[in-house]
Amino acid sequence: MKTTKNDKILLAHGGGGRLMHELISDHIVARLNNNILAELNDSAKLDIKSDSIYLTTDSYVVKPLFFNGGDIGKLAVCGTVNDLAVAGAKPIALSLAIIVETGFKFELLDKILDSISQAAKANNVNVVTGDFKTVESGAADKIFINTSGIGIRLANADLGLSRITAGDKIIINGTIGDHGMTVICQRDGIELDMQLKSDCAGLSSLTCELLENTDGVKFMRDPTRGGLAATVNEICKGIGLNIRIRERDIPVNQSTQAAADIFGFDLLTVANEGKVVAVVSAESADTCLNICRNHPLGKKASIIGEVIDTDEQAIVEIETQIGGTRIVQMPSGHQLPRIC
Amino acid sequence: MKTTKNDKILLAHGGGGRLMHELISDHIVARLNNNILAELNDSAKLDIKSDSIYLTTDSYVVKPLFFNGGDIGKLAVCGTVNDLAVAGAKPIALSLAIIVETGFKFELLDKILDSISQAAKANNVNVVTGDFKTVESGAADKIFINTSGIGIRLANADLGLSRITAGDKIIINGTIGDHGMTVICQRDGIELDMQLKSDCAGLSSLTCELLENTDGVKFMRDPTRGGLAATVNEICKGIGLNIRIRERDIPVNQSTQAAADIFGFDLLTVANEGKVVAVVSAESADTCLNICRNHPLGKKASIIGEVIDTDEQAIVEIETQIGGTRIVQMPSGHQLPRIC
Repeated sequence: MKTTKNDKILLAHGGGGRLMHELISDHIVARLNNNILAELNDSAKLDIKSDSIYLTTDSYVVKPLFFNGGDIGKLAVCGTVNDLAVAGAKPIALSLAIIVETGFKFELLDKILDSISQAAKANNVNVVTGDFKTVESGAADKIFINTSGIGIRLANADLGLSRITAGDKIIINGTIGDHGMTVICQRDGIELDMQLKSDCAGLSSLTCELLENTDGVKFMRDPTRGGLAATVNEICKGIGLNIRIRERDIPVNQSTQAAADIFGFDLLTVANEGKVVAVVSAESADTCLNICRNHPLGKKASIIGEVIDTDEQAIVEIETQIGGTRIVQMPSGHQLPRIC
Repeated sequence: MKTTKNDKILLAHGGGGRLMHELISDHIVARLNNNILAELNDSAKLDIKSDSIYLTTDSYVVKPLFFNGGDIGKLAVCGTVNDLAVAGAKPIALSLAIIVETGFKFELLDKILDSISQAAKANNVNVVTGDFKTVESGAADKIFINTSGIGIRLANADLGLSRITAGDKIIINGTIGDHGMTVICQRDGIELDMQLKSDCAGLSSLTCELLENTDGVKFMRDPTRGGLAATVNEICKGIGLNIRIRERDIPVNQSTQAAADIFGFDLLTVANEGKVVAVVSAESADTCLNICRNHPLGKKASIIGEVIDTDEQAIVEIETQIGGTRIVQMPSGHQLPRIC
């Protein structure tokens, strides 16, 4: 009997039967192989020597699926790795749950799975368990991916908003808004003279290096949806102190800035996928900055502002290029759907 | 300024800004409150005293969202709890990631979140971290939910296919196919004289009781997609021994059987969401059966077959009601899309 190989996803690929098992072994396990995943149990057993486990989850619905600098697969690994990294954890294991509409090409699925495999290797984590669901054509826009991640607390990580005090410095490891502007421009098929590139990257090697070499890091967060504006506002609200940042010290790529200007976006509110905002003690700020600048993901790192006392309701202020001051609001969120 | 409360999900509710923060605090955290979730960090920190952690994930795309006996929220908690339970783990914490299309009513979202809250309480787990994404109307069919779960190994759980030997008994805790047939009939708007009801339930109290009271349990799996047929075939393939089950000993609800007959389904291949298949030693089989029957989720438990030696390729056989024998194949998976 001649069997013809499907080149597109069928409903039955999510039905729990033979076709699903073939898909999982031939396409997924073949690419993401490790001893735990290979057991194909519904739960993955992890031997962990730590009392402090971190759990995080994110679903990825980015559109388009492929963009300059990454794709939904790389994003799904890096985004979840980063949520663990900024918590002061070392990422250990990921789960991978895929929802795909029927008719989606195996060729694209395989490309995404290859990308997941590469990003997992680059970030030194294994995909240890997963789930695969199909829905009818049109019931999902191509493919959605969820990754959850487990990490263990780094021995010397003592992070928390409560550690932040007036005088602490705010550091970012590079230029802002690159991911968001790249996705927006490619989604709308906009051709620009300049090439935009997402900053999509896993940050755990950088955050681990910071935490291992200084005890001055008090809090970290990755400025994804809502951008730097949302992150500094969250910190500000959480500590009840003012934050002042300086526009001239915030790194931007000229082409990203130009794209933002053309489309009327405030780069402060645009998503990043390879950035960390760290609040560090004043004494450790130069050390932290140097560690960042010596790391491939922190070459353009900068001290962008500081925490200052206030007797009133805590706000984020920005000192503009021309020397004025304005308040940085929490963005409403309208700007950028399906950016990650 | 008068603010009007939205009654439907907007794109901005997933944008990372003010609206998303309001949704998370007013709708999600308000219902699922616990100390860890309330911190709203991107990663949840769990203090766990165990070297063996289990991680599992499942995305839920069930259609319709609400069905007799449950809804997508209850299913998302119970399904993930069950993946941990059958691994011999005690569920500790869940993550919750929601993808919703714009225009979805808050009223329904709240109903689903209430259901998640109730199911989490009933199964003694907390939702400790989450993610909320919006997509344009039509880019997802209403709402998809991913839950990942962490469990810790029960001290006396020593489960694995390698422990199974010829002579072991197969137990199921009740009737088969109720979830699948309920969802199929309600999806197609079929009115039947009899009332079908999903078996959707979290099994961890039953599995913990089994493992705490006998060391005869060798392997467990929940027969979800692909039904009992897929589960016994997976076990059979994994151990390289034959499995023989008896049709007359497999519990079925008459109304579920009638619905399956009308629509031409083989109940062996229809999904369950509150069932566990346990492979136990012959000596412990009666003890296990009694523990099940004394538990609310195991009143109709039955020993449905056994593992037998073979010199040939391992197969699953069923002794039919009329005394014949046929092979139970791994289902192809065509039958029941979007059943969970």
